[in-house]
Amino acid sequence: MSSDSLSDYAAFAAELADAARAAIAVASRDADDKGGGAFDPVTEADRAAERAMRALIGARYPDHGIAGEEYGVVRGDARFVWSLDPIDGTRSFICGLPSWTTLIALVEEGAATVGLIDAPALDERYSGFGRMARLNGEALATSGCATLAEARFSTTDPYLFAGAEAEGFERLRRATRVARYGLDAYAYARVAAGGLDLVVESGLKPHDYNALGPVVRGAGGFFGNWEGGDDLSAGRVVAAASERLFEDAVALLQD
Amino acid sequence: MSSDSLSDYAAFAAELADAARAAIAVASRDADDKGGGAFDPVTEADRAAERAMRALIGARYPDHGIAGEEYGVVRGDARFVWSLDPIDGTRSFICGLPSWTTLIALVEEGAATVGLIDAPALDERYSGFGRMARLNGEALATSGCATLAEARFSTTDPYLFAGAEAEGFERLRRATRVARYGLDAYAYARVAAGGLDLVVESGLKPHDYNALGPVVRGAGGFFGNWEGGDDLSAGRVVAAASERLFEDAVALLQD
Repeated sequence: MSSDSLSDYAAFAAELADAARAAIAVASRDADDKGGGAFDPVTEADRAAERAMRALIGARYPDHGIAGEEYGVVRGDARFVWSLDPIDGTRSFICGLPSWTTLIALVEEGAATVGLIDAPALDERYSGFGRMARLNGEALATSGCATLAEARFSTTDPYLFAGAEAEGFERLRRATRVARYGLDAYAYARVAAGGLDLVVESGLKPHDYNALGPVVRGAGGFFGNWEGGDDLSAGRVVAAASERLFEDAVALLQD
Repeated sequence: MSSDSLSDYAAFAAELADAARAAIAVASRDADDKGGGAFDPVTEADRAAERAMRALIGARYPDHGIAGEEYGVVRGDARFVWSLDPIDGTRSFICGLPSWTTLIALVEEGAATVGLIDAPALDERYSGFGRMARLNGEALATSGCATLAEARFSTTDPYLFAGAEAEGFERLRRATRVARYGLDAYAYARVAAGGLDLVVESGLKPHDYNALGPVVRGAGGFFGNWEGGDDLSAGRVVAAASERLFEDAVALLQD
């Protein structure tokens, strides 16, 4: 049984991110389509990075579980499960855009306790646990913005919303000061760093969202679902720079 | 009368970009609203960078005109006019996102002959004239993509389109493989570099578009208006990785 601290796990997550960076740097960016409808790209870089991380976890914490985007779940009922998304933002990656990230989280009995968002093309590594978040080792804090009308808002793709979700998104877009699109997990990193104030998305999977909460919360932000709760399993996520902004965004989404 | 070559002017544009980088690095990012309806941010960094560039132009080419976003036009009827946008993508800049750029173009008798797109946060400088475009000194070429169904498409803000423009945009969005938003002039730089294949926008001003054509065309791409012509004064721009893709995009916009 492991008796490592969260700080130990965060340091190990950084080792995983180093391994992913190295694997991605030498792998092909040529995209295959995963199939299943809309273009869903995956590259050898995605696969190579996840294999590298899985090998390190198996060597260091053989009793821990792993849930990765590309190679699925092993030991999913373990107390500790590592959640891996080797390249979040594969669409940006294949367009040569810098905002793609590697997402790593330690999930303990269902709750993400350590999160890491690595942006290799920008040489920015965001990590968080407990009440601390860091960017390349420097402590981070959200902007504290508490007013929708002043908020810098982001979502990855406005066309992913449909029906009532689209209406809620539209209300938020009109209520906020400026909107930016296309950032995937990097948007949450920027909330932690005080650059953006609000991110709202739907359709996220556990490997997409597990790493985000510890970073956003560690920087003093708020992170939850569209109803204001902690259960993210429906894939609908709100991240905000302050509690007030989080609550106002949730209220507007539910109108 | 100046007898400098395009290569000399391109080298001078790089001096201007260096001066803009230095001015922006030490200036405030706090945004004022320019007013006039939708939030239109401008920062002291915008102003300081344009002042630095205007001073250099006045010293080196006192008979040249200058048309800058923040301080307007002087000697607009000169044979050579420098077109300056100190920070294109101010919305990204104030969100701490890396895709903002400084745009510099030399316009000779109405036609942009030298273009420079500088992305300081990414340490990427794109320049082009004649049949050559470079990124940090390395020669660039577009992807050559000639098929809409395989194209990586981008526009800055899908909500900027209205009426028939919105319909044309929607046809393109559905016809292309993947869409990315929020990139401002950086999207055109990525077409030149082969990362994106197609960019379509409307509502651009001369300081927004002058620098783009020489870079895209220098890399072998095609750059024109929504009718397939060269007159950009209506602010509606198409940039494509190949002539075929350009023509197919224009046809879909006009349907």
